[in-house]
Amino acid sequence: MPMTRKEFLKLTGKGAAAAGLGFFAFLNEPRGFAADVLESDTLKRIHQHIDDNLDRHLAKIQEFLRQPSVSSWNLGVQDCAEMLVGYFKQLGCQETNLVPTAGYPGVWAWYDAGAKKTISRYFMYDTQPYDEKEWSSPPLAANVVPFPPFKSALIARGAINSKGPLVAFLNALESTIAVTGTLPVNLMFTCDGEEEQGSPHFHEVLHPYHDRLKTCSAHLNPGPSQNRDGQVSMYLGNKGILYIELEASGQRWGRGPQRMPIHSSRKAIMDSPVWRLVDALKTLYDQQSNRILVDGYYDKIAPPSDEEKMLVATLIEKFKDRAFGSERENARVWLQDWSDEEAIRRLVHDTTLNIDGIWGGYTGPGVATILPEKAACKIDSRLVPDQVIQEQEKLIRAHLDRHGYSDIEMRTLGGGDEWSRTSVTAPAVQSVLSVYKKYNIEPAIWPRSAGSSPQAQYTRAPLNLPACSGGLGHGGRAHAVDEYFVIEGNDQVAGLADCEKSMVDILFAYAHWPS
Amino acid sequence: MPMTRKEFLKLTGKGAAAAGLGFFAFLNEPRGFAADVLESDTLKRIHQHIDDNLDRHLAKIQEFLRQPSVSSWNLGVQDCAEMLVGYFKQLGCQETNLVPTAGYPGVWAWYDAGAKKTISRYFMYDTQPYDEKEWSSPPLAANVVPFPPFKSALIARGAINSKGPLVAFLNALESTIAVTGTLPVNLMFTCDGEEEQGSPHFHEVLHPYHDRLKTCSAHLNPGPSQNRDGQVSMYLGNKGILYIELEASGQRWGRGPQRMPIHSSRKAIMDSPVWRLVDALKTLYDQQSNRILVDGYYDKIAPPSDEEKMLVATLIEKFKDRAFGSERENARVWLQDWSDEEAIRRLVHDTTLNIDGIWGGYTGPGVATILPEKAACKIDSRLVPDQVIQEQEKLIRAHLDRHGYSDIEMRTLGGGDEWSRTSVTAPAVQSVLSVYKKYNIEPAIWPRSAGSSPQAQYTRAPLNLPACSGGLGHGGRAHAVDEYFVIEGNDQVAGLADCEKSMVDILFAYAHWPS
Repeated sequence: MPMTRKEFLKLTGKGAAAAGLGFFAFLNEPRGFAADVLESDTLKRIHQHIDDNLDRHLAKIQEFLRQPSVSSWNLGVQDCAEMLVGYFKQLGCQETNLVPTAGYPGVWAWYDAGAKKTISRYFMYDTQPYDEKEWSSPPLAANVVPFPPFKSALIARGAINSKGPLVAFLNALESTIAVTGTLPVNLMFTCDGEEEQGSPHFHEVLHPYHDRLKTCSAHLNPGPSQNRDGQVSMYLGNKGILYIELEASGQRWGRGPQRMPIHSSRKAIMDSPVWRLVDALKTLYDQQSNRILVDGYYDKIAPPSDEEKMLVATLIEKFKDRAFGSERENARVWLQDWSDEEAIRRLVHDTTLNIDGIWGGYTGPGVATILPEKAACKIDSRLVPDQVIQEQEKLIRAHLDRHGYSDIEMRTLGGGDEWSRTSVTAPAVQSVLSVYKKYNIEPAIWPRSAGSSPQAQYTRAPLNLPACSGGLGHGGRAHAVDEYFVIEGNDQVAGLADCEKSMVDILFAYAHWPS
Repeated sequence: MPMTRKEFLKLTGKGAAAAGLGFFAFLNEPRGFAADVLESDTLKRIHQHIDDNLDRHLAKIQEFLRQPSVSSWNLGVQDCAEMLVGYFKQLGCQETNLVPTAGYPGVWAWYDAGAKKTISRYFMYDTQPYDEKEWSSPPLAANVVPFPPFKSALIARGAINSKGPLVAFLNALESTIAVTGTLPVNLMFTCDGEEEQGSPHFHEVLHPYHDRLKTCSAHLNPGPSQNRDGQVSMYLGNKGILYIELEASGQRWGRGPQRMPIHSSRKAIMDSPVWRLVDALKTLYDQQSNRILVDGYYDKIAPPSDEEKMLVATLIEKFKDRAFGSERENARVWLQDWSDEEAIRRLVHDTTLNIDGIWGGYTGPGVATILPEKAACKIDSRLVPDQVIQEQEKLIRAHLDRHGYSDIEMRTLGGGDEWSRTSVTAPAVQSVLSVYKKYNIEPAIWPRSAGSSPQAQYTRAPLNLPACSGGLGHGGRAHAVDEYFVIEGNDQVAGLADCEKSMVDILFAYAHWPS
């Protein structure tokens, strides 16, 4: 017998945590308000339809991945947007169209099922760049290959981040409509073609639809969320991101080479913009102490909330050993030799200042003797509550000016992803948790991911929607070589079919959850 | 009536400087010991032969420039060496052959004229790389184009540095042989195909010929030496060069990403090799004070000699206004806001630490959010007496180790060009000065150039040859876009014909100079 909402909230509240039950107490209980629907014949028939049509579903994912959409390179993004509009039409959306922006177009679509609840769904359809010669299978070929320890996986740029899961969700909807004639919820889709650029124009996609999106009750994004071992981490929010370029140039500085590199022997009498950049960077961050030295950079950071504290305590208590899974391969020690416990806290709570790239002068093979006329770097900073992108940016500018580096040019790239957070008590979150329970998965719940997304545009003013994502399935190597999406899994990890089935489950669970 | 050598030395000695005459007093006198030969019929007939064969001479220069020889790119260097051997054979050299090294081959050639004196002549036949799309005429086309304020110039990579002048010298020899049947001096040629790499293997070219080269009385390198205004600067030596790469990597450090870049959100818990490199660099040099911070880096520097002091004093007194000619276009102010006088002193006497290039992470357009697994830079240091390359290199390594950066990998690139110096009183120098006098050119004499060359391999032990270069003609933009060599000059600047004629003059002046 399902708990009442009141009973549930009692279990997930402070009292339960104090009693050592934590937020996961409910997992030992029936699946909340969604138990009946998750066992229904309707769902079983939809699952069967997915199994029967899996080859076609996979082919559609491959079709979408073979259309490049590398926003950094201006490669195929517009064509990919138009392909996505076509998919929404096939699905039977009452509305779908490109949404022009100052950059690449976004995409809007609306599926009106005449249902009580409306869900907001986000897609990104652009990808990171790639260096094809490093891949074992070409990044645009979207080949399905044996992929131990899984039976098979699809290799492609965008396979997991996020064009593969995007089409998997459309496949799940298609099967639902095929079996039931409609969907259990109405859906409003808003899609970004510049996510990998930091979503600089996504607000232009959302803005015309603000009044429509306000009718949604949640921003719910089902998708493959298992790690290599089949375990799940759930993120109830994300950090914001500030992305800038800093450039030292002789011209702006009025010192050193003014217009072009000069013979390096001239270093005896001329200043170097490269050394200038090194000097300026050194004032921003101290590597030894891991301290951001920008004046006031930490001032706006709020202390962790009680809910965050409890979630982090539970993470450390129950999930410490799997918190960093495959990451361990690429990291021997954490910053400052932190323990895993401390690293979990820092990953959740810390702001950062990272150099994504640095360049200047001759960077090819062998020797060239030049004094470069400029040098530059890309810097990103992850922001936590209550840091605000524009304010942090101003702090960096003011710091450089105050330390005598007003000649260092600062260019904003991307920008727009503020931090986001949703409470674990939100029905959208509880619905997803109920589906994990159905499959005997106990997720590690993180108050926020260390990364960024445009989610704040849904979860903060003016829309204020609770947001959640989750589901079965697995992929990896996002942003890296041989990005993959598991098609046939193993005992721990779901393949494509179960991934799509869990997406259907989540929609039905949420549709039936009391609100 | 020519001065005696004793009289001349008196004039160029300390006494003359004290009397305000400086090293240039002799320029108001007859052309030393070379006056007669410089006005001889023989020279006039050779000059006429150059005029009569100029089209063919130019065509041969173009042929050599169209054969690429970019040592950084492994492009055409071997073919170029073989072409050069062919040229020496055409000239009638008794010996010529490739000299194998661990890198690109060098070239040896010997022309035995049965003369009393033997001159050592150096050629380099490799070039810097180029970015063809930036050039107004393709760098391998070697087109002759109108080139104001000159009537015409040849545009090519290597046009002036130094494949153009190399063939011009061979042309001058060819005309001399055509008219006189021989040369006034014997010549030993040793040629480097890796000069732009810092001549890492040139000692392997010289070593087998050390006993032969010891029979030379001078290392004399006639070549175009006029600037844009027709003026001449003469360099009696050069600085040494140390060229290294420094790399910070997660793998060597044992911190940060170990094998590949990781998502930049991980900066919250992982160290960054890019910040590590910034940190290490900052300990090497202070931009604000222009101070190299490497412990002991200045210790070996000898105070300027009396001759150097007098040469620099004369430079400042008579040539300050033209010391930096076209350089002023690319430099608004000198380091530390030095006066031109101080800049002249520093250019002659200061050691340097320059970042030629720096790179790490994502350096393309737009946004990529990665924490790079490594970052590196190229650094060159110009060395002055009595700094020694290997010792300075050890100081940097020891400094990094002492400051906790033993994980920073240090790779030596190039290496081998120590500093060089020759006294202004050497007959080779005086011969070149007498030719300038013939053409009413008063050169600015620098104790050394701020740049580097393998010249020390001739001027220091075991060969100990005095070295000098000089001659009419002009070219520019070495190492840069649209490198050029003037073919038809103007009232101030000699064209190719006069360039070759002055080369002939220098050989005859030296042949007749008392030794």
